[in-house]
Amino acid sequence: MLGQMFSLKEFEQTRTALRDKVRVTPLLFSDALSTRTGQQVYLKAENFQRTHSFKIRAAYGGLLAKLAEARQHGVVTGSSGNFAQAIAYVGQELGVRVTVVMLERSAPNKVEAARRYGAEIVFCENDFAVRTATVERLSREQGKAIVPSFDGEGTIRGNGTLGFELLEQLPAAEVVLVPVSGGGLVAGVSAVLKQSSWRGRIYGVQPEVNPSLKVSLERGEPTTVPNAATVADGLVANRPGKLTFALAQQYVDDVLLVSEEEIVEATVRLLEEEKLVVEPSGAASVAALVRYFAGKQPAQKVVAVLSGGNAELGRLTDMVKEHRRQQTAAPVRS
Amino acid sequence: MLGQMFSLKEFEQTRTALRDKVRVTPLLFSDALSTRTGQQVYLKAENFQRTHSFKIRAAYGGLLAKLAEARQHGVVTGSSGNFAQAIAYVGQELGVRVTVVMLERSAPNKVEAARRYGAEIVFCENDFAVRTATVERLSREQGKAIVPSFDGEGTIRGNGTLGFELLEQLPAAEVVLVPVSGGGLVAGVSAVLKQSSWRGRIYGVQPEVNPSLKVSLERGEPTTVPNAATVADGLVANRPGKLTFALAQQYVDDVLLVSEEEIVEATVRLLEEEKLVVEPSGAASVAALVRYFAGKQPAQKVVAVLSGGNAELGRLTDMVKEHRRQQTAAPVRS
Repeated sequence: MLGQMFSLKEFEQTRTALRDKVRVTPLLFSDALSTRTGQQVYLKAENFQRTHSFKIRAAYGGLLAKLAEARQHGVVTGSSGNFAQAIAYVGQELGVRVTVVMLERSAPNKVEAARRYGAEIVFCENDFAVRTATVERLSREQGKAIVPSFDGEGTIRGNGTLGFELLEQLPAAEVVLVPVSGGGLVAGVSAVLKQSSWRGRIYGVQPEVNPSLKVSLERGEPTTVPNAATVADGLVANRPGKLTFALAQQYVDDVLLVSEEEIVEATVRLLEEEKLVVEPSGAASVAALVRYFAGKQPAQKVVAVLSGGNAELGRLTDMVKEHRRQQTAAPVRS
Repeated sequence: MLGQMFSLKEFEQTRTALRDKVRVTPLLFSDALSTRTGQQVYLKAENFQRTHSFKIRAAYGGLLAKLAEARQHGVVTGSSGNFAQAIAYVGQELGVRVTVVMLERSAPNKVEAARRYGAEIVFCENDFAVRTATVERLSREQGKAIVPSFDGEGTIRGNGTLGFELLEQLPAAEVVLVPVSGGGLVAGVSAVLKQSSWRGRIYGVQPEVNPSLKVSLERGEPTTVPNAATVADGLVANRPGKLTFALAQQYVDDVLLVSEEEIVEATVRLLEEEKLVVEPSGAASVAALVRYFAGKQPAQKVVAVLSGGNAELGRLTDMVKEHRRQQTAAPVRS
């Protein structure tokens, strides 16, 4: 059944439907990262996507798949932030009322952005099971259509659009690195790439403190890991979805883990050396590039997907200062 | 004579010569600036050019035009920073020794970057006449070829490559805004655009405190204005070149002036809303967009050239904090 639902043909249809709605983001060659790692490094800049993250792909894919139902009673969803902005934006475009259930600890800039696009925000305690229950209750009580932030057919097919762009922009890519929370992006992109004629490898990237997809793949079933806070505030889903797990099992080569420090360093360097504002969650792919591919031979063409740019600027500047202070304080090696 | 030296055919030849050397930078549609100004706003992101500014175009154009001479005794040039990095980089690529004369007040990150690419730096006092004299002395004494940072044939033709990219990326552009220091970029881009079939308007943008090209065009001759410090540390040439003046007189529609505050605001907003690290000099075009085009009807397709991204990060984060403090301190309007 998975095969039919997520065949290349289905993905292609979604891509056609989303053609004027999703922006083709630039693929930027990075001199600094190529020099540092000895690879040919390309950055897929989803921080320049509408609402500044890849989630617009998920939101359009998900909402278009349920449009009739959604127009009648509105939609409800849960999100740690970027999906909230994206679904609010898409709802505004398509004339659909949007309600988003968010964890209380969600980044304030992301909450504000969702409100700016007209979404109603409902907060819940910092637990994903509670969030899911709240979404289901609102759907039951008010007849709202649920558009899942990662584990939905339309959502995943929407994310697949990024895979097609990579096939067009750099068909010779040998490695693709994708930040993973619930696994929606890596599921969609890997399903497109691996069902095409492409012959490279694709890796998910997660924070060491939240290895939910990594552990699930090792155990062979969707597995819940403990809730954990990470500097990558978008990579916090502590269990993959049913669909995203099944697709990852089939199409993803492995999941690479990165430390909090590596994520911060990648974020700061992207800002300093690449002139890119990328949120820590979006920079996790670069952290994995540096940790796992630096110095590897022969050199390969590696794409790091920068999945979003919605970092709160004050937090980012503090991060830069703190990072520099630590660099300066570190003992000089002789 | 100007006509022959800078005919469209000459520019086309330079473009062909530079095709694999200069990066085609992305043209990014800006949702936030389009909403704010009521125009359709596109950002030409030269902060993603090699060495992170448009000056690589100037440096390749200038150095290729004098390559035989330069390979023998090296080259010497004067620069406030971005050209220094660019010529150092190009020198390294082409196997040419590079000496750069810099004002003592030059931004430390730009000095360091030039050194990293192997250039020798010679400092001089903070006066452009002294810098020019120093460059000429080093050329006389050591036989070095002079590659001017803005007022050279090859330099200007190299900058013209950006004009061709705009013609390909957005032929329907109606307005193009270009930051101006000595006028090299606006000269090259305007000469290409206005000699093609393009029928829009092109404006230079300068800080109010350094209106050298504006005053020169008003007087009808290259005119020296007083040296002035500005937050846009790359827009400090206080007199246009002979060639750049002549081309601007022929092809540039006008020069628009922007305040220091407007430049800072544009820089901070690009960082916050567009996820782009742009140096204040490169953000001047956006400052002009907001000041002169907001609310104008009918809406037009406006391209703001972001000429570079080499802002020192510490300085940028201080700028963000100071800007926010002032925003907060401003009296609330009732």
